[in-house]
Amino acid sequence: MQEPDPLLAGGPGACRSHLVTRIREHEGVQHEADLLAEETAVALEYNGISHATLLASPCDLEDLAYGFSYTEGIIRGPQDMRDVELVERGNGLVLRMQIASACLDQLKRRRRSLAGRSGCGLCGIESLDEVRRDLPPLAPRRSVAKVSAIVAAVAELRGMQALHAATGATHAAGWADAAGKIMLVREDVGRHNALDKLIGHLLRNAADTAVGIAVVSSRASFEMVEKSAAAGIPVLVAVSAATSYAARTAEELNVMLAGFARGPQFTIYSHPEYLSREEDPT
Amino acid sequence: MQEPDPLLAGGPGACRSHLVTRIREHEGVQHEADLLAEETAVALEYNGISHATLLASPCDLEDLAYGFSYTEGIIRGPQDMRDVELVERGNGLVLRMQIASACLDQLKRRRRSLAGRSGCGLCGIESLDEVRRDLPPLAPRRSVAKVSAIVAAVAELRGMQALHAATGATHAAGWADAAGKIMLVREDVGRHNALDKLIGHLLRNAADTAVGIAVVSSRASFEMVEKSAAAGIPVLVAVSAATSYAARTAEELNVMLAGFARGPQFTIYSHPEYLSREEDPT
Repeated sequence: MQEPDPLLAGGPGACRSHLVTRIREHEGVQHEADLLAEETAVALEYNGISHATLLASPCDLEDLAYGFSYTEGIIRGPQDMRDVELVERGNGLVLRMQIASACLDQLKRRRRSLAGRSGCGLCGIESLDEVRRDLPPLAPRRSVAKVSAIVAAVAELRGMQALHAATGATHAAGWADAAGKIMLVREDVGRHNALDKLIGHLLRNAADTAVGIAVVSSRASFEMVEKSAAAGIPVLVAVSAATSYAARTAEELNVMLAGFARGPQFTIYSHPEYLSREEDPT
Repeated sequence: MQEPDPLLAGGPGACRSHLVTRIREHEGVQHEADLLAEETAVALEYNGISHATLLASPCDLEDLAYGFSYTEGIIRGPQDMRDVELVERGNGLVLRMQIASACLDQLKRRRRSLAGRSGCGLCGIESLDEVRRDLPPLAPRRSVAKVSAIVAAVAELRGMQALHAATGATHAAGWADAAGKIMLVREDVGRHNALDKLIGHLLRNAADTAVGIAVVSSRASFEMVEKSAAAGIPVLVAVSAATSYAARTAEELNVMLAGFARGPQFTIYSHPEYLSREEDPT
């Protein structure tokens, strides 16, 4: 059996050694090697047609291919993705995807030619009317997540960000079960990409996204709320702040959005009724 | 004289009150009003033609218009910007710009239709070849910035992020003089937008960008290095990490890039010879 391409599945290409100069005021300078996160242009091609170019960490790119295509509404499920091939070019990488021909119409409707800079998930929209997607809200829920599970998931994620520990330059998205145990972590220089990689992996493994908690190490944008809703994830927890637009979008799409999750506390921006009492069975 | 449009110049629209639920494990819940950063779709039009849609904080948008247009290479200087008008729509804002007709060719060459999500400066690029711009490097320099000035500028910026203090959700870009005194701060939910707003204001006021230090509260992407070089800024200091691509770009464009600037220390990723000895005159 062929070894998986390290850039497609995990991979060491996500950081690179660089000679830096450490400065400390009133003290000497020090030259040493440091690990920096790589930021690579990744062009997305569907059935031979250029669609988008993202700046991303060059790891877990097959997950990114599935996650981006799904949260963008280009594929309806993993069965629509027929093939993913990674091609290295001198100035970046190309993700060559073959999708079901029935998806090409949707692709044309939502055609974008874009280069998302790190921290950027979606680009290429031609008018204000296209910014907000026409996503159906999730089914309303009650008692989905325990406070203790959210607190545990946030705490556990911090210790599982290997690329961030090495470089300090990347965001993470984690998937926790109902008890708050982190089952999966994906990292990227872009916070939207990290979430897409996470969703892509869940999708490829037929995970039940309705039961669990997505935790992101970053702030929450309205776009990340849309991605959660598109993936059927009812609870999105951000370590840092949420924007007002993210909060309104979460309200409308029936996503519980929490932020400023630090230590034993967090803030809920939408649907606090999704919290369950500690004595409820998970 | 007409009052300036508050959204064009500073303005209170950049944050909004939202009812949140504060959770603290093993304690009660608390419902209260919180200030959240607004995240607004801003469509950019040049001479009536849609060019791009960014998600941005709705303040200092005239600075954003000048800065984005200049660092993108669409205008050659402030004289090419004939008019900036802001139009409010139900689903966002439109920045209607009139630019010199000589600039329209450049615009077509670099035509992009994009919606940059917060944290995203540039989008809409159709192929890998267009990701990296063909910018000339700055003239090589020596002894441009003192250690004490960089340390002072970073420390001062922290206290001047009004929108961040209110919301926790925005990045800042500051401009410091050679002694490290912050002369100007711009904030945005997107780190690239904050830098563009800063550069736009410097440009409109004919500031000498070759003498001074740009400080950003965020990480540094390769894009932010390109923006600094395009604006003639030789020293870019990030509070957080830089990517490997940012470091290589800074090396090539003759920008001194520093990061992890905290307390009395920072890390230099490129051109440490730009540091001056403390006894040199500023």
